[in-house]
Amino acid sequence: MESIALTPIGTLHSIYKEKFGIPRQPGLVDAPAWMDFYPAYAREEAVRGLEHFSHVWLLFNFHQSNIAPGQKDTQAKWLPMVRPPRLGGNKKVGVFASRSPCRPNGIGMSAVRLTSIEHTDKGPVLHLSGVDILDGTPILDIKPYLPYSDIVLNADDGFAHGASSETCRIVFASKAKRQIRKKERQIPRLASIITAILENDPRPAYRSGPSGKAEPDRVFGIRIFDFDLKWMVTDDQIIVLELAVCA
Amino acid sequence: MESIALTPIGTLHSIYKEKFGIPRQPGLVDAPAWMDFYPAYAREEAVRGLEHFSHVWLLFNFHQSNIAPGQKDTQAKWLPMVRPPRLGGNKKVGVFASRSPCRPNGIGMSAVRLTSIEHTDKGPVLHLSGVDILDGTPILDIKPYLPYSDIVLNADDGFAHGASSETCRIVFASKAKRQIRKKERQIPRLASIITAILENDPRPAYRSGPSGKAEPDRVFGIRIFDFDLKWMVTDDQIIVLELAVCA
Repeated sequence: MESIALTPIGTLHSIYKEKFGIPRQPGLVDAPAWMDFYPAYAREEAVRGLEHFSHVWLLFNFHQSNIAPGQKDTQAKWLPMVRPPRLGGNKKVGVFASRSPCRPNGIGMSAVRLTSIEHTDKGPVLHLSGVDILDGTPILDIKPYLPYSDIVLNADDGFAHGASSETCRIVFASKAKRQIRKKERQIPRLASIITAILENDPRPAYRSGPSGKAEPDRVFGIRIFDFDLKWMVTDDQIIVLELAVCA
Repeated sequence: MESIALTPIGTLHSIYKEKFGIPRQPGLVDAPAWMDFYPAYAREEAVRGLEHFSHVWLLFNFHQSNIAPGQKDTQAKWLPMVRPPRLGGNKKVGVFASRSPCRPNGIGMSAVRLTSIEHTDKGPVLHLSGVDILDGTPILDIKPYLPYSDIVLNADDGFAHGASSETCRIVFASKAKRQIRKKERQIPRLASIITAILENDPRPAYRSGPSGKAEPDRVFGIRIFDFDLKWMVTDDQIIVLELAVCA
């Protein structure tokens, strides 16, 4: 089969600097994100009318998945079965029955909120919210979210289910509290963004599940914004320890 | 920007042999369609678990749009503004505010019903319904439709609205009736499939709209299945004339 060449149109900028800690679905964490365009696509006309839509689909390249961008022979690297985190990380399903990044043609899609469109000297900037995409991700396409065709109300979702309704209690250690108070001058609502990221327990399911290895003393780090968020888990709560400098 | 090479994983087979007459959104016409895989992807394991989902997203290449598949310099051919048929065909909007096929990176996405998965000697075949995609379209990816992240109930759809609730009355001429009765031995429900295709009036909006050029005597043809469906419009109804041989 002849391959199809795609050119990224722009870049997504988000608070998520590494894969660990990214929400497992869009819309969970109301953190700011934005997208700018490469010069060839940075044209006001190309987004005209988009301001009428509350949500957009972003089609993007899973550029940090196992399959490298621009790799010619995608057949060499994809695996027919994957272990989705939602199934506890130890049950395998077919890659096409999952939304895993490790797939032939590593394209991801997310429905995110479009909060505003800013027009700058360098072209339009889309301000977004509810993004579950890594910082620096190449964007391939933007499409308006069309409720009349994208909402399938009678769809059955098989074994995958939404975010657990049971959320963890989040506690801030005094050091973290002080640091957050200071940072909130630049990053409004930082405490609530951190709470939203942690309350669905970002640990892989094989660690957090009932049969999992709990590792109660382990300190986890998540790189968001310009710091490394350090936290640990006790029986029934997650303790935010500090905002460390990134290594 | 470095380009990203994608390889189609399979082919979509549908009743729509040309662009004219394809429903303007998925789910409107309950006609059969199926997808098979290229040998490298034709593996039972790759779709294992997909049978639990009622709907899937198909990501596909708009291979008959203005931008040719595999074309290196996509920047040369895309237009920043398009005229969506829903807006009457004479109002322009930005290409990223539309779902037009004529876009940088010609990827389309549709949520369609997965009716069954058949396992054959040549690999899995997905049987689908509600498809709005041209016959022979290269498929790039299959993803399960996940209600908890793909349904955005509070999304505002700007100026685009769903299929008109006013449908045309469809009348079958006696010649068409006879031909359909005969064909229905091979194609079950053919009369109701034809009705569903025509009742939303597939003519471009500039012809059908109130200010449009009505052309009451014009005979239209739509190539579906293996025939050319001939029909015309009167004041308040569409008359199915005959099932002609394709030229």
